Amino acid sequence: MTLDTAWSELSELLGDRITRSKPDLAAHGGSESYFPATPPEAVAYPEATAEVSALVRICAAHGVPVTGWGAGTSLEGQAQAFSGGVVVDFARMNRVLGVGQADMDARVQPGLTREALNEELRATGLFFPVDPGANASIGGMASTRASGTTAVRYGTMRDNVLGLEVVLADGRVIRTGTRARKSSAGYDLTGLFIGAEGTLGLITELTLRLHGQPEAVSAAVCAFDSIGDAVRAVVDTIQMGIPMARIEFVDEGTVAAVNAYSGSEMALVPHLLVEFHGSDSAVEEQAEAFGTIVADHGGHGFQWAASAEDRRALWTLRHHAYWAILAARPGTRAVVTDICVPISRLAEAVEATQADLQEHGITGPILGHVGDGNFHAILLFDPSDVAELERVKAASDRMVALALSMGGTSTGEHGVGVGKKAFMAREHGDAWQVMGLVKQALDPQNLMNPGKLAPDAN
Amino acid sequence: MTLDTAWSELSELLGDRITRSKPDLAAHGGSESYFPATPPEAVAYPEATAEVSALVRICAAHGVPVTGWGAGTSLEGQAQAFSGGVVVDFARMNRVLGVGQADMDARVQPGLTREALNEELRATGLFFPVDPGANASIGGMASTRASGTTAVRYGTMRDNVLGLEVVLADGRVIRTGTRARKSSAGYDLTGLFIGAEGTLGLITELTLRLHGQPEAVSAAVCAFDSIGDAVRAVVDTIQMGIPMARIEFVDEGTVAAVNAYSGSEMALVPHLLVEFHGSDSAVEEQAEAFGTIVADHGGHGFQWAASAEDRRALWTLRHHAYWAILAARPGTRAVVTDICVPISRLAEAVEATQADLQEHGITGPILGHVGDGNFHAILLFDPSDVAELERVKAASDRMVALALSMGGTSTGEHGVGVGKKAFMAREHGDAWQVMGLVKQALDPQNLMNPGKLAPDAN
Repeated sequence: MTLDTAWSELSELLGDRITRSKPDLAAHGGSESYFPATPPEAVAYPEATAEVSALVRICAAHGVPVTGWGAGTSLEGQAQAFSGGVVVDFARMNRVLGVGQADMDARVQPGLTREALNEELRATGLFFPVDPGANASIGGMASTRASGTTAVRYGTMRDNVLGLEVVLADGRVIRTGTRARKSSAGYDLTGLFIGAEGTLGLITELTLRLHGQPEAVSAAVCAFDSIGDAVRAVVDTIQMGIPMARIEFVDEGTVAAVNAYSGSEMALVPHLLVEFHGSDSAVEEQAEAFGTIVADHGGHGFQWAASAEDRRALWTLRHHAYWAILAARPGTRAVVTDICVPISRLAEAVEATQADLQEHGITGPILGHVGDGNFHAILLFDPSDVAELERVKAASDRMVALALSMGGTSTGEHGVGVGKKAFMAREHGDAWQVMGLVKQALDPQNLMNPGKLAPDAN
Repeated sequence: MTLDTAWSELSELLGDRITRSKPDLAAHGGSESYFPATPPEAVAYPEATAEVSALVRICAAHGVPVTGWGAGTSLEGQAQAFSGGVVVDFARMNRVLGVGQADMDARVQPGLTREALNEELRATGLFFPVDPGANASIGGMASTRASGTTAVRYGTMRDNVLGLEVVLADGRVIRTGTRARKSSAGYDLTGLFIGAEGTLGLITELTLRLHGQPEAVSAAVCAFDSIGDAVRAVVDTIQMGIPMARIEFVDEGTVAAVNAYSGSEMALVPHLLVEFHGSDSAVEEQAEAFGTIVADHGGHGFQWAASAEDRRALWTLRHHAYWAILAARPGTRAVVTDICVPISRLAEAVEATQADLQEHGITGPILGHVGDGNFHAILLFDPSDVAELERVKAASDRMVALALSMGGTSTGEHGVGVGKKAFMAREHGDAWQVMGLVKQALDPQNLMNPGKLAPDAN
């Protein structure tokens, strides 16, 4: 046991902030996802970058794997320590270190959650827009290149992180990026660590790009007779340059689950949920222009959520869709797939997926970030039925194959972890080997979140 | 001479499309910049990716350096073959390979210029927004992570390239990214090659993100009594969320040169040049809101350029500022510096630079992309006066030191090449060594544009 030889040094470094207690290990062994629980050998709770650096140095010296843990909300097993070793839980590194009002930026620690950040920002007139639904940690969101409902307007984590502090595999601490809005000074290391899932180092600080809280916000929901009509409305909307803040799709299966769970009474047809940000008159104009497009494509049942309360209800409904769908068949779990295709192929992709699921007798409501061409199917299975899980995973695999055949990607926002690793060679070809070269160069011992994302070391 | 041993294979591959003729070598030996002319040993004009791949394989086998060449407009010596070898001129790979109307994307070859691209796009209702001023090649713009006047609204090359085809140092061809708008499928290799200046491979194809041509465009110029007033107006504008399409600063020295060159009659004070994109009413509203902010900060002499012709005149004036400044002192050349700072420090940075230049008797008008905190000083020197060049370079160095002391970067958009390489260690610390690890992993022989950007190989 390599951890045993490192234990005395780790204990000396962190005292009771590193533990092998069963409850701690169990709490860091699972995820929302379908992977079997795999408790790590130890859980550490560092309070400063210097501690993370020292911890990684000790682990490197003893050959102990190191896996980062934010809020534990990732969906492809990214935070599970399948190879054992130490899970580094950033719960105690969760502070806002500074807000630059004029520069519209913030320095934060990785364990901060996005909701806590926006709570702290409330009085500044600024906000951090990336919203993956779950109250994820900012460090975890950066590590999986998260996005979510607002990416169509504000971009993904790739677009909203200006710089990072990273502890490398040998314990060295580097800074990437600056507080300048842009730079051409060398390789984009910030971009390299975003989406790297902790396989190249641990993020210990982030400089984030903030946005001004919009003067006015308005949201709406409207119904369509078919996904094709809804998508065509979206394509027109984006081509017109209407700066939608959110534009979300839910299929009839999702609507049924949400109605049952939340008591809403939406018609059992596909819907778009949208939000507009801007000045009062800009929001009004955007909404009017969108309304015209929607009418052109047979949209109906337009309902406004102008008050903050109604809007909150609308997006709570959307964010709880996952739970609503799970609740529709009590006792089930879900494989949550996440493909992204060129928007011109989106209607076809959703329809083909619906037909495939029906053919295979799988319950899998579909919802997603239609403005980006990104959608999820929440594929239900009975955890005691191994054959059903296999059937559901096969359906998820067919969705990925479909996305790739359409020039899309196997994951729009959930990341690779172990769940999508089998598709990397097919999606990237030799470029996956290039990722392997980068991994090997930065983590030659393969101790940083080993087994995830990159090709297995030889 | 390593090229000699490779020559027969290269000639067999490319026929008369590889040459050692003096005029061809001379045409690929210099740049707009202050570096001495350094003709390569040969210039190749490939017509297809397969030829680039074969060329790189031959060069790898014989240890011949390979440097890409787009339009030759880079400013830090990126396209000069300081180590000899073959310059690969992409002039014959300059086609638009496809435009996706619904997906708002385009596949293009690297030798295509941005003006030619937008000419081809004119009838589609779409455009490619990145505008560094020069009519650069798209491949070169990607390689230096170019941006320019529109980055404040549309982002830089980093934000507008969805995917790449790249020939690696061993001749392998990879594809990065997909046609999906976003992805979390592994390391962001697209982002890694953008800004890599050809040191990790040669870009042979790009998938670009396009934008809808705005329904309405309006531009304006207005005067301020001080740079501080102008910058404060810009900060307020951005915080208010007014989606400025361009927001450019010119100092009084630039105005004087432009007046003399173009016959314009702008007051000899700092100016902002701005542009608004949107619907008719959105543009009107944005302009009105901006006007109020400008008035709050003592702006005056507001002049509208509402007609397409007036707008073209305005931006031609801006884009010709470099030539206007050179013409102000006939026979001179210039060191064009390019720092970028947090916008909260911008006024201070410009004022400190003006004072420094005055103190050292250097003529160096200042202009820049004020919305990003990015500005250039065009530092004039007499090419026959070595001491003046050294004085000017020292001033440029002090500007970089200033930018770094303010949390900024040594280059906002021109890149590293050889001109900014001396600052990489200071800007990035150990992160520069990480860039070196990446370089070594992908180009172990150090043949891809050697000597640029990355630390020198041991």
